Amino acid sequence: MVVGSSPELHELFRPASVAVVGASNRPGRVGTSLFRNLLSAGFQGVAYPVNPSWKSVSGVRCYPDLRSLPEAPELGVVIVPAAKVAATVDELGRAGAKGAVIISAGFREVGDAGAALEAEVVARAREHRMSLVGPNCFGVFNTDPEVGLNATFSELLPPAGNIAFVSQSGALGAGILKYGASERIGFSRFVSVGNRAGVDENDLLTSLDRDPRTRVILLYVESLANGRQFLEAAREVTEHKPVLVIKSGRTSAGERAAKSHTGSLAQSGRDQLFDSVFAQAGVQRVDSLGDLFRLAKIFSTGLALDGPRLAILTNSGGPGIVAADAAIRQGLELPPLSAGLRTQLAGELPSIAAVANPVDMTADVGAEDYRRSLIALLGSGEVDGAMVISTPTGTMTGDRVARAILEARAATSKPIVACLFGLSDLSAEVTFLEQHGVPTYTFPEEAVEGLGSLARYRAWLNRPRLPVRSFPVDAAKAEAVLRRAAESGQSVLPEYAARGLLEAYGLRFPGSELVRSAEEAAAAAGRLGYPVVLKVASPDISHKTDVGGVAVGLADAASVRAAFQRMDRQVRAAAPTARIDGYEVESQVPGGKEVLVGVQRDPNFGPIVVFGLGGIYVEVLKDVTFRLAPMRPLSAQHMVESVRAYPLLAGVRGEPPSDVAALVEAIERVSQLAVERPEVSELDLNPLIVRPAGQGVVAVDARVVLAPPSRSGPSP
Amino acid sequence: MVVGSSPELHELFRPASVAVVGASNRPGRVGTSLFRNLLSAGFQGVAYPVNPSWKSVSGVRCYPDLRSLPEAPELGVVIVPAAKVAATVDELGRAGAKGAVIISAGFREVGDAGAALEAEVVARAREHRMSLVGPNCFGVFNTDPEVGLNATFSELLPPAGNIAFVSQSGALGAGILKYGASERIGFSRFVSVGNRAGVDENDLLTSLDRDPRTRVILLYVESLANGRQFLEAAREVTEHKPVLVIKSGRTSAGERAAKSHTGSLAQSGRDQLFDSVFAQAGVQRVDSLGDLFRLAKIFSTGLALDGPRLAILTNSGGPGIVAADAAIRQGLELPPLSAGLRTQLAGELPSIAAVANPVDMTADVGAEDYRRSLIALLGSGEVDGAMVISTPTGTMTGDRVARAILEARAATSKPIVACLFGLSDLSAEVTFLEQHGVPTYTFPEEAVEGLGSLARYRAWLNRPRLPVRSFPVDAAKAEAVLRRAAESGQSVLPEYAARGLLEAYGLRFPGSELVRSAEEAAAAAGRLGYPVVLKVASPDISHKTDVGGVAVGLADAASVRAAFQRMDRQVRAAAPTARIDGYEVESQVPGGKEVLVGVQRDPNFGPIVVFGLGGIYVEVLKDVTFRLAPMRPLSAQHMVESVRAYPLLAGVRGEPPSDVAALVEAIERVSQLAVERPEVSELDLNPLIVRPAGQGVVAVDARVVLAPPSRSGPSP
Repeated sequence: MVVGSSPELHELFRPASVAVVGASNRPGRVGTSLFRNLLSAGFQGVAYPVNPSWKSVSGVRCYPDLRSLPEAPELGVVIVPAAKVAATVDELGRAGAKGAVIISAGFREVGDAGAALEAEVVARAREHRMSLVGPNCFGVFNTDPEVGLNATFSELLPPAGNIAFVSQSGALGAGILKYGASERIGFSRFVSVGNRAGVDENDLLTSLDRDPRTRVILLYVESLANGRQFLEAAREVTEHKPVLVIKSGRTSAGERAAKSHTGSLAQSGRDQLFDSVFAQAGVQRVDSLGDLFRLAKIFSTGLALDGPRLAILTNSGGPGIVAADAAIRQGLELPPLSAGLRTQLAGELPSIAAVANPVDMTADVGAEDYRRSLIALLGSGEVDGAMVISTPTGTMTGDRVARAILEARAATSKPIVACLFGLSDLSAEVTFLEQHGVPTYTFPEEAVEGLGSLARYRAWLNRPRLPVRSFPVDAAKAEAVLRRAAESGQSVLPEYAARGLLEAYGLRFPGSELVRSAEEAAAAAGRLGYPVVLKVASPDISHKTDVGGVAVGLADAASVRAAFQRMDRQVRAAAPTARIDGYEVESQVPGGKEVLVGVQRDPNFGPIVVFGLGGIYVEVLKDVTFRLAPMRPLSAQHMVESVRAYPLLAGVRGEPPSDVAALVEAIERVSQLAVERPEVSELDLNPLIVRPAGQGVVAVDARVVLAPPSRSGPSP
Repeated sequence: MVVGSSPELHELFRPASVAVVGASNRPGRVGTSLFRNLLSAGFQGVAYPVNPSWKSVSGVRCYPDLRSLPEAPELGVVIVPAAKVAATVDELGRAGAKGAVIISAGFREVGDAGAALEAEVVARAREHRMSLVGPNCFGVFNTDPEVGLNATFSELLPPAGNIAFVSQSGALGAGILKYGASERIGFSRFVSVGNRAGVDENDLLTSLDRDPRTRVILLYVESLANGRQFLEAAREVTEHKPVLVIKSGRTSAGERAAKSHTGSLAQSGRDQLFDSVFAQAGVQRVDSLGDLFRLAKIFSTGLALDGPRLAILTNSGGPGIVAADAAIRQGLELPPLSAGLRTQLAGELPSIAAVANPVDMTADVGAEDYRRSLIALLGSGEVDGAMVISTPTGTMTGDRVARAILEARAATSKPIVACLFGLSDLSAEVTFLEQHGVPTYTFPEEAVEGLGSLARYRAWLNRPRLPVRSFPVDAAKAEAVLRRAAESGQSVLPEYAARGLLEAYGLRFPGSELVRSAEEAAAAAGRLGYPVVLKVASPDISHKTDVGGVAVGLADAASVRAAFQRMDRQVRAAAPTARIDGYEVESQVPGGKEVLVGVQRDPNFGPIVVFGLGGIYVEVLKDVTFRLAPMRPLSAQHMVESVRAYPLLAGVRGEPPSDVAALVEAIERVSQLAVERPEVSELDLNPLIVRPAGQGVVAVDARVVLAPPSRSGPSP
């Protein structure tokens, strides 16, 4: 939540003047190092130390308070005890500041008293319409030479570059800056968001999206400030630049026990839920900090891969095979080369060279062979990019190979990545290549992973952008069902009501009649056609099979009568206090695949749709996927395709394929229901039967739970 | 295949004298750099250049031929044209050499003519009982200061250390040596095995096992010279030291089309087969070269983790959470600390410190807090090892933390690993820690992965070592079945014969009778008890369902008669030329889980047993595991437990657990059959029904394929 300001957040990243409240000269104090860093990083604005205890700080005239400043500071950096922060923010606001970075700790992270102080800080910032970073944070920097802002207490800064980093952990950010400095990784901007009382990762995504110096955005988060806003912000940003994220931290224990399948899946699969949200937003989740920076490197060059076709060019078989394996794992393709291209390549290479893909030129080649082969490969139109491996030989130096690669690079717009095997990251050759736009990696796998990440980003950009479909629904019927439930105070809808709600949203159920005697049941079955299913209908019985309340495959009137009598006896014995509305006779759905489609409402993410193949696959193998509603057709399609058991729907062993199109539409309709009916807190269609292609889907059982009615008016 | 010598291969690693045949002074020649390297690495024996063209090489008196040498060279290094190598090896043998390293290329790798040359080289080496490395290799080195052997053409050598490396790719080996030199990774020995005409990775495993300077063995292989020998050699070596492997390269196309389920699974799952073999041998397979060296580093220290319980000690929350996530992924445990230990830790830490696990001391602590907390944690008996994270703060240098960690290290035998976040691998602090036995990593995840690898190795060492069980079998019956099949020239056994063979090995089938008429069928069913299954019995019909040759669930005599008549008609129509021995009436097996147990014979690995849950799980989800026969009980147990669908056997949704013990025994019996009956080339039990615990397993369908009879006597 930003408190004031424009989406660019210029007051944080490009302030004309900065007041450091709590600047100091005492060694070892944050206020000392922060002010010194601000000066030494070459700040292009005016830096004002504010502290009544000093006449000057780091040789700069110090002001006793904010009122004494000769001009309004655009940004305030606050390093005073927690109890004084709210007052300081207030003074900053009165002095005309547009933003504040609160380094001080001692707020929400230390308990209730701190949380109260934090609320006060937020209130003051809001009053003055100021952007607020922190509290309990490590600061902000911007390497733009026109700005030169280092408002952190890290003395060592990485070089200027294209990578922006947003960290929920200050210490992790500090470590990363030091790492970036020692490994010479170029950063554009950095923000430690601390407790996120004001600016959060969503605001920063939007801001960094508009920063022309930032080519790739890295996030470290332990939670999302607002999962739903994240999806919206990130989906917009990834249209323009890639976002890579590390999401750490597991589910906190003690979350409310889940009441339905979908609920328990959403709990046990919480980490998978983040995966789904990231996938839906086009954000790439990475598993480790090492991967994060290796992938950031390739994106920071601005290289783009137009397709998945890769050529591997090497002077040695082994590393080529390692790269090829990694390429296949990354979903890249190694197309066989055309006869013409092979002839062209072979003409100049040693006779023992293997002119396939990988192209193994063998150890006898020189730098010129690299140059010529690369130009031939990338000029052929047969591949979208190239990976070059050079292993040390007696006859060729890394230096000469590097120059050859750059000559080829100048002749093409397609990306080239390199592995100068055996050379350190910081060697002159590697630095030389990277400075000229050829990301270079220690090991072949790392280079290929970088390309894989480029290819995934390109696939995201190239996806069809279909709008969310809005299906015509029977709103009156849906409202009637929900109103009746609200009036009767029901939280779990009776099955026929659940069915009515879903039918209003276009879901199809088998023909059904409510009956109250064995004779009525047999008559209804005759009308519906055999075989039929018989089920108890009771608002008090949620899991019908547990009380003997379901009988399937009833093939004739005698079976229906017998089943009715047996069921009535069993149910009344097992659930003597349940109100029984009667029994449902339903047409039994002919063959198909059972799937589960459900809705769960999450405080952070809002409505979530879950999908999986029914029974064992969902319950035992946990083979499910999640997406946030509303859902575009492609998301629903991906959702269906991404379960491991998807081949069962696609059709195996001579079976006809299932009606995946109808399933996708059913998921979209459920998603629409979830968005339009916020009072539905949980929903399970389990099973939904997916019939062979062209025959649609039929819901067999529906369970709908309503949220407890929200109190109207403010709470006392 | 070693040609002569003792298992230690001293002639390769510790030769008293080395003749370099093809040594040279011409710049850029392999013979030039190799001889120069041999001298400059400080060889403690005598190095003799041999080349008629030079009077001296690198200032050392050169000999025109091997006969002129003043003593027998223990090792010959050969760098002459391929056509002259066999003669050179012969001369070396005559001169008394015990080993030869053939650097020269132009052998099997270039086609048939080269393969013929290679065979000749092998014949000469065998004649003289010489160990042979190569041809087409990069050489051998041993950093032992008593030896100082660098018989490679790599000038840059890594420092002496404990890591041995065996590479099937010379170039990859060369890259690794250069990498090791630039990153200061200590190696003990290195061998490039080239074409493996002589010494292969199996010989080297055995040799390196006996090298006291080697603590961990790394392998890079694209194939295994002999998969079965590998399993045996590696299983022995991993009793003493860890083995880490990179296996690259995918299945070569054009392998013979597989004929059975098991066969096709073994083909499509070839990479998974390697996984299984490595698991069975206690070898850890790693995915990337980066991982390989990060894991090697921790093993090279000789540290051991006695159990999976880890403490994480950090001065910052974020990196601690990242480490905790990684620990859980690695299967490590983060036990909650006892109240006593928490009180002890909290006593000296800042009040805001989070004394849980991870222990987040917060940014205000100093080096002394690290020392004291580490000693308390590791002295408590509550954890098996510790991971220390230090992120940069204004108040504490990496140097002081490093010294504090070493003081704690001196007070405990438990492993400590560190992440000095933000410091480069090559910083003084990191080097200092590593030199004193604290492996230190750039990122928290990497440190934890190292510990995970230690824990997996410890679990391997601690496993129960149960011998392969040998079950009493009815050998006479098995032999009779196989003899009859051999006499009749059958390659696919008729089902009753397959059943007989498996019954001889103690597998149980349902009661069954062979009948020839509908009346006989009904009578047999009466004796066996209803329901029954009816199946066609024909040596010519392998997939019975395809011709309508299976009917199940026959509940009374009328159904049996009807099914018989229908089946007889359908089968004769569908397979008019098939010989029909009659029809089998079988008791229908009551409820249980269907699994597949099979055998496949592989030219490289010998008999392989495959296991998976039947139907969809095997055929669509490819959820299968492999093990080489013979199999220890624990391997069979792991095999069952490692399929994703295992929870279905363990018992879910209130179902009773299946009889896993009986299933494990059945797998062991099939394994025994595979070993004792080499004429069985493929076997499928599909399905085998696993009944509830205590009720055993019953095979329903068996398919056995025999190998074509091997020709006796040499081929013409």
